[in-house]
Amino acid sequence: MEVLVPFSTHRPKSRLADALSPSERAAFARTMLADVLAAIDDAGGTPRVLATDEIGSIDEFEMGAGIDPTARPTLPIDPPVTVDDRPLSDAVNAILEERRPGEEVEAVAVVMADLALATPEALERLFGGVDQDGRGTETGPADVTIAPGRGGGTNALVVSHPRFRVDYHGASFLDHRRIAAEVGASVRTVDSHRLATDIDERADLAELLVHGDGAAATWLREAGFTLVADGGRVGVVRE
Amino acid sequence: MEVLVPFSTHRPKSRLADALSPSERAAFARTMLADVLAAIDDAGGTPRVLATDEIGSIDEFEMGAGIDPTARPTLPIDPPVTVDDRPLSDAVNAILEERRPGEEVEAVAVVMADLALATPEALERLFGGVDQDGRGTETGPADVTIAPGRGGGTNALVVSHPRFRVDYHGASFLDHRRIAAEVGASVRTVDSHRLATDIDERADLAELLVHGDGAAATWLREAGFTLVADGGRVGVVRE
Repeated sequence: MEVLVPFSTHRPKSRLADALSPSERAAFARTMLADVLAAIDDAGGTPRVLATDEIGSIDEFEMGAGIDPTARPTLPIDPPVTVDDRPLSDAVNAILEERRPGEEVEAVAVVMADLALATPEALERLFGGVDQDGRGTETGPADVTIAPGRGGGTNALVVSHPRFRVDYHGASFLDHRRIAAEVGASVRTVDSHRLATDIDERADLAELLVHGDGAAATWLREAGFTLVADGGRVGVVRE
Repeated sequence: MEVLVPFSTHRPKSRLADALSPSERAAFARTMLADVLAAIDDAGGTPRVLATDEIGSIDEFEMGAGIDPTARPTLPIDPPVTVDDRPLSDAVNAILEERRPGEEVEAVAVVMADLALATPEALERLFGGVDQDGRGTETGPADVTIAPGRGGGTNALVVSHPRFRVDYHGASFLDHRRIAAEVGASVRTVDSHRLATDIDERADLAELLVHGDGAAATWLREAGFTLVADGGRVGVVRE
């Protein structure tokens, strides 16, 4: 199954500004992308990066920012990159539109690049609802499979319905259910903490330190972040 | 399987003080307990409330606070209640200790009372790792099964090892993995957004409005809470 991985090269992870510098955020976003691509590959998916600009420009940015090149992760696999500088929904829908020859379309997945906790097992649960021809299987038949993100978002989905389109603005999980209903597409949700946890804000870094074991978690630990008890939930401090 | 549901009658849900009054928090906590008990029952578990005081005292508290009795949910099932006013870990460990005749112990589960998004399906995934005799099954053999909570917590677990004890203080997910290793108990984790989402803080209310369909979600909607786009993730406002 083709798996689109949207990746913004323009001021990535700006909501982590209270934890990381701009050049650090760029490097950290890149490590998360590397983790996500590796997990997709392990889960049997075929990743394709949907970037707002050439991926190479991040390398240049990092080099310009003086980031240690040895600390800059290389991508574990070499996926094709499609550059589209339009807003996320437009860029994804352009690709969904491409594959509409008729009622028979192949399933396409969209997995966010900041799901640094995604494991092959979690992604297999996402991909598992459709067979190799993109049709629903007995274990999870659905035209649209959604892994909700925390705060009403859509962190990952699989689309095997020809008329379903995405709308990532606002509470997209609810919007995607509505859109599916409008085009008569069945919906399955994947109940996964790992897929629900996009790494967007400072508090999310604690989640990565607790549960992560990939390049992004290692990067964060090497950058000096550790867990700290913070009332109810644990938070992070930087040493 | 016996399922302990710890429930605090003393200033419940104090971290929701910026959203609900004390009497509302007591009523809301009770609706969440009702949802959790019903889900456990539907999943085939046998719930037993582990309360810091007589459950009846909440009724009296609510009545005294002038809460509409018709809005006050009755518990859908009538579980046994064990009163223990010690700290949570001590109270749970006392029960784990009780059932230690030797190496053969029955599995006991502990499910937090504020998991208002818990569904029977999610709990079946938690309970599924042990058979009716409390031993590991092929689908998920483990001496200890943990559903992590957001922020390093332990929102639900199943213990079928005689020497495992809980420690809910701090980053309990990591502590529980360490304790399991110390007593030679195998660990399985359940990757569930629903079980990871304890309703503790204002932002968690949005999660309940997006994904909930039980008594607690209904209570919240009737109390005037609605979703509002709030930058990245959706939040709640009260009308």
